[in-house]
Amino acid sequence: MTREKLIQEIKSTKSFLCVGLDTDMDRIPKHLLDTEDPIFEFNKAIIDATKDHCVAYKPNIAFYECLGPKGWESLKKTIDYIPKNKFTIADAKRGDIGNTSRYYAKTFFEYMDFDAVTIAPYMGEDSITPFLEYKDKWVIVLALTSNKGALDFQFMTDLSGEKLYENVLKKTSKWGSAEQLMYVVGATRSEGIQSVRNIVPNYFFLVPGIGAQGGSLNDTAQYGWNDDCGLLVNSSRGILYASEGEDFASKAQEKAIEVQQEMEVILKDKGLI
Amino acid sequence: MTREKLIQEIKSTKSFLCVGLDTDMDRIPKHLLDTEDPIFEFNKAIIDATKDHCVAYKPNIAFYECLGPKGWESLKKTIDYIPKNKFTIADAKRGDIGNTSRYYAKTFFEYMDFDAVTIAPYMGEDSITPFLEYKDKWVIVLALTSNKGALDFQFMTDLSGEKLYENVLKKTSKWGSAEQLMYVVGATRSEGIQSVRNIVPNYFFLVPGIGAQGGSLNDTAQYGWNDDCGLLVNSSRGILYASEGEDFASKAQEKAIEVQQEMEVILKDKGLI
Repeated sequence: MTREKLIQEIKSTKSFLCVGLDTDMDRIPKHLLDTEDPIFEFNKAIIDATKDHCVAYKPNIAFYECLGPKGWESLKKTIDYIPKNKFTIADAKRGDIGNTSRYYAKTFFEYMDFDAVTIAPYMGEDSITPFLEYKDKWVIVLALTSNKGALDFQFMTDLSGEKLYENVLKKTSKWGSAEQLMYVVGATRSEGIQSVRNIVPNYFFLVPGIGAQGGSLNDTAQYGWNDDCGLLVNSSRGILYASEGEDFASKAQEKAIEVQQEMEVILKDKGLI
Repeated sequence: MTREKLIQEIKSTKSFLCVGLDTDMDRIPKHLLDTEDPIFEFNKAIIDATKDHCVAYKPNIAFYECLGPKGWESLKKTIDYIPKNKFTIADAKRGDIGNTSRYYAKTFFEYMDFDAVTIAPYMGEDSITPFLEYKDKWVIVLALTSNKGALDFQFMTDLSGEKLYENVLKKTSKWGSAEQLMYVVGATRSEGIQSVRNIVPNYFFLVPGIGAQGGSLNDTAQYGWNDDCGLLVNSSRGILYASEGEDFASKAQEKAIEVQQEMEVILKDKGLI
């Protein structure tokens, strides 16, 4: 998907919500466990219920991988089921030497038709550029994450006062343009979002950490906004497990609408719609 | 596998060779393509041919993942086929928040019975510790990698003169002992190996980069050795694709024996056997 189409989708849906498909066999409603593919049945219902209120879906690959080949089948069916006007993100956090990165790109961009994949930057340029060889496909680089462990290395400061995550932003933004590269920027660090926005004004951010992890949507919009919105805000558990009963899909829809309406207010406030 | 058993295996095999199973559909001999599971048939033959000359196997997960559910089946069959006295490494380079890391651990330590998994440290402590909750299972943290991109971030230097990879070693070695944690240290940077050894004297290193990437076995042993050997030196393409004909397994065996014999000389020189 092109950046232009993504922005168009944000405007027409009046939303910059990304629904995280962290689909967990231990948490999906019991009545689905008797179906042939409970993971896919759950995702299908969630997608049907939320697709008018979000612009992106982000399956967390760990949740599928741990189920073996069957999990990969559920994932493939899910990605094939998501409407083509939605931006799809494989939250895989891969990162390897060039030779191996090419195979990861093949997995997520050829075997499965994802629009984007999340990448850890530790191994540098050749862990990122093989993904950028695919036209209209995206790499989403971990910059400033939302977890506690983010403090361990991402804030390491060099001799010029630059932090590791700032260094990651400066270098990686030379390897890929804002038409193909985004950044993971956790919502739990508002001051961080602003510092990231200052370094890469044009890039989109994928923002996890709203809801279960405690981040705020308004703070994220205040500090992370750019002229094209520039934000995909993810919510996983808050939507997926709004109810653990047979009404899970309608409750998920209610939650998605609730977030979408907050986003609509922000989009209007900012003058994008 | 315990550290003690691994050291015992090194002594009895007179080898610290790890065979990297980067099994590539485009490079395996043509006559295998007619079998039901070419990847597994290839791996089976390679394992049979090399198991007396190595102590570890390291499937590179990217090569299996890109084949979809069938690739995961080949991987599962491969890990089940490897003799139990061999140390097995899922070269997956995962790294995510704690909640997700638990699922990755489940994949590699429960669904598949790997001894170890490689992990990228960018997201910090909670991306590593969930794996350490498994008894006798290992995390192998990327410290100093063998690729060109290693120079992009791993050598970033903080105010006290400490490099990122040194910081990673110091912090992560507090999270896990040498009984459960190892480091990836590329053979292409001999001076780097020595600096890593100085910081973590007791830990094992998984050393890629010998052969195709240009690293030297003798330099690695000179700079990386510790009292228990402390090295697992990986070779992938040099062994797997020693021949692309029907004699691939016997040629792979010849190559493995060649490396094992060099290692035996080193092990004797160092007085470990």
